[in-house]
Amino acid sequence: MKKNSRPEIPRKAIYRLSIYLRCLQRLKANGIRTVSSEALAAAAAVKSPQLRKDLTYFGQFGTRGLGYDAEQLAKLLSDVLGTTRLQPVILVGVGNLGSALLSYRGFQQEGFEIIAAFDQFPEKKRSRKFATPMLGMDKVEEFVRKHAVKMAVLTVPPEAAQEVVNTLIEIGITGILNFSTITLQVPEDVMVNNVNLAIELENLSYFVQQ
Amino acid sequence: MKKNSRPEIPRKAIYRLSIYLRCLQRLKANGIRTVSSEALAAAAAVKSPQLRKDLTYFGQFGTRGLGYDAEQLAKLLSDVLGTTRLQPVILVGVGNLGSALLSYRGFQQEGFEIIAAFDQFPEKKRSRKFATPMLGMDKVEEFVRKHAVKMAVLTVPPEAAQEVVNTLIEIGITGILNFSTITLQVPEDVMVNNVNLAIELENLSYFVQQ
Repeated sequence: MKKNSRPEIPRKAIYRLSIYLRCLQRLKANGIRTVSSEALAAAAAVKSPQLRKDLTYFGQFGTRGLGYDAEQLAKLLSDVLGTTRLQPVILVGVGNLGSALLSYRGFQQEGFEIIAAFDQFPEKKRSRKFATPMLGMDKVEEFVRKHAVKMAVLTVPPEAAQEVVNTLIEIGITGILNFSTITLQVPEDVMVNNVNLAIELENLSYFVQQ
Repeated sequence: MKKNSRPEIPRKAIYRLSIYLRCLQRLKANGIRTVSSEALAAAAAVKSPQLRKDLTYFGQFGTRGLGYDAEQLAKLLSDVLGTTRLQPVILVGVGNLGSALLSYRGFQQEGFEIIAAFDQFPEKKRSRKFATPMLGMDKVEEFVRKHAVKMAVLTVPPEAAQEVVNTLIEIGITGILNFSTITLQVPEDVMVNNVNLAIELENLSYFVQQ
């Protein structure tokens, strides 16, 4: 069951918060301390009433005539998004794409740390060494419970994806970044975000032929 | 200017074609030769009228009572999506994420080949060797024109992204898979698909806290 600790915020608004946060970080890096809703909206490529509406969900109204304090607003958004502290994430499926993502160090800069990777065959020889510990699927339950992990990056083959997801949900994972090419069936209180690089490329491929 | 060689197909329908194609490939791998629109729709997690509507854009109606020939329909979809032959793609920005994607061999299985990578500093020492040729940005124009490349994977830092995109568009790129965290400004006849791993994770992060 979903706790109703906050009003129901549209999913797209949450995506926009991430965009606002990045715009604020760029502004701060450029020495800008306060920003009007118009300027922040323009930087994020949204209309300013949209921005103001999104921020009122979190009790943030700015100061009329002065705009938002960039530092303060960035801190608020980071709190809301849960990225103030490094968040532990597991990766499941160390094949081709899983390996590529394990060697990508960018997640950590963004507040996410892949603290362990799981695979059906953790002992299999791989072309690279990873700093992240790699464990067998039989260890995932103990690990997830011990480290209170809530998020998983899923890079298993499509035929294994649903079964793996069922296991992950059973042991307490509630957020899944799904790179596998199938549509996952999950209960209402589990969130799946799909990233399908091949499908994005195919989609572009269609359009570049036009 | 966009050529009007085909009726305007909703962008979401094109995404669904990719899903149908994958479902058909799985069915074929399981030895299934014909499939009803109901069964294919169920596999793709869409309603069957939706599936039938999507396919009529391409003059594909199936045979009443017999369903679709899986092989034939897969071929048609692959033609429509332009993945019957290997499509050349360039990657621009060989930093952390660009390197990870270059070492991911999964694109090729899906019909896309990264035939060259471009970076501002192609000579910079990197932790890995790549099979893909790496060139400086001063070579991109000649290369793209010579190989008639239409698609680019963009993995440059956000502050460089718009300028790089302007260059790519000028030299004939019309499809961009954008991994940078900014919203790109492009003309109408250029298609940008955004993949933002950090924002997807932040979005999940918000929900797992609820």
